[in-house]
Amino acid sequence: MSEEALVLLAAVTVLGVLQQAYFSLQVIYARRKYLVCPPATGGPPEFERIFRAQANCSEYFPLFISVLWTSGVFFSQGLSSVCGLLYLYGRLRYFHGYSQSAQQRLAPLYFSAEVLWVLVGFSVLGVFLSLCRVYLDVDLLHKLGSALDLV
Amino acid sequence: MSEEALVLLAAVTVLGVLQQAYFSLQVIYARRKYLVCPPATGGPPEFERIFRAQANCSEYFPLFISVLWTSGVFFSQGLSSVCGLLYLYGRLRYFHGYSQSAQQRLAPLYFSAEVLWVLVGFSVLGVFLSLCRVYLDVDLLHKLGSALDLV
Amino acid sequence: MSEEALVLLAAVTVLGVLQQAYFSLQVIYARRKYLVCPPATGGPPEFERIFRAQANCSEYFPLFISVLWTSGVFFSQGLSSVCGLLYLYGRLRYFHGYSQSAQQRLAPLYFSAEVLWVLVGFSVLGVFLSLCRVYLDVDLLHKLGSALDLV
Repeated sequence: MSEEALVLLAAVTVLGVLQQAYFSLQVIYARRKYLVCPPATGGPPEFERIFRAQANCSEYFPLFISVLWTSGVFFSQGLSSVCGLLYLYGRLRYFHGYSQSAQQRLAPLYFSAEVLWVLVGFSVLGVFLSLCRVYLDVDLLHKLGSALDLV
Repeated sequence: MSEEALVLLAAVTVLGVLQQAYFSLQVIYARRKYLVCPPATGGPPEFERIFRAQANCSEYFPLFISVLWTSGVFFSQGLSSVCGLLYLYGRLRYFHGYSQSAQQRLAPLYFSAEVLWVLVGFSVLGVFLSLCRVYLDVDLLHKLGSALDLV
Repeated sequence: MSEEALVLLAAVTVLGVLQQAYFSLQVIYARRKYLVCPPATGGPPEFERIFRAQANCSEYFPLFISVLWTSGVFFSQGLSSVCGLLYLYGRLRYFHGYSQSAQQRLAPLYFSAEVLWVLVGFSVLGVFLSLCRVYLDVDLLHKLGSALDLV
């Protein structure tokens, strides 16, 4: 595993961490604005929406990082990084949408869920092809290429 | 670090992500069934148990992934992957048990905690042996092998 | 990526997992002491502070691990591991401070946030230098060294 094969994934990961830091700061500002002192997590709906938006993004962050890297290492670094950027863009719109109303969180939530499923699909495919190479000594991509050549 | 040395860990990781996605869907269905609209997280006990089961699994997911990979890279990929599958099986039983009653979450919770401790133990051992090799230039496993040969 | 280049990061990671396990045990003890049965998460302020302290540390754990590794792989394993130990020390003081009062969580919270920002800074710098090497074929560190030699 060389530096070249991982650096784009690392760049998207750092962007993702910065985004989570930004969301956490919004919760801190909302705590001050709506006077909700820790350890309380309940308060006016405006506060609770921001709090839940951040909690939901936090919860998905490890899943996102896991599939970003398995997809990037076992399938394609370029495609995975593009999906990673789209996911982060979707999460930014989700956070701002949810801050406005529960309804406005839905469209970007579906969008980022779909991007996450694409990364899951790439991961499954990449890991499956790799298992075939390692344990069955069969290179399916190579075989597919040869078959297409024959056509 | 070659593809062969990591592919089983990647396979278990993707399975773990799929399991978390399944748990998240169960929370969405429970929100609809028990009419608990976001951002609320409180509701009838049936809903709260499913919500907490998912939250607990989410919370442990990064710990699980961390020890799965340190144990797999520094100790043994095969043993770590087997433990990983057992952990995911335990978490599935935990989720369904907790959905039924708080009591029924206990047995699978203890089981998955034990498997996690085994992965922590493998990680500590693997990292310790590796630190000895790298910083003390001592290969304890090799020494142990030689000592056993002499007996 | 060799064993030597990663083993300190793995050691800090395992320490971090052990710390999270310790925090989780404290929540279990607090549930017993203050008679807060799952799935409830509300109760006397003493319990809620311990519960929130653990939840906050859990939430930051994936961010911490992400920047620890990107900083360690792309910038410096030694510096990242030292920052990692400082972060874990800050989190331990945060947890015990928060258990006492919401006020006492603040100083160690700021400390661990600052250490996390240092790791983010190292990650950004390391990934940026690596992107320059890989995609622009420019080794900025080497250039800087040559420039300083000329002075």
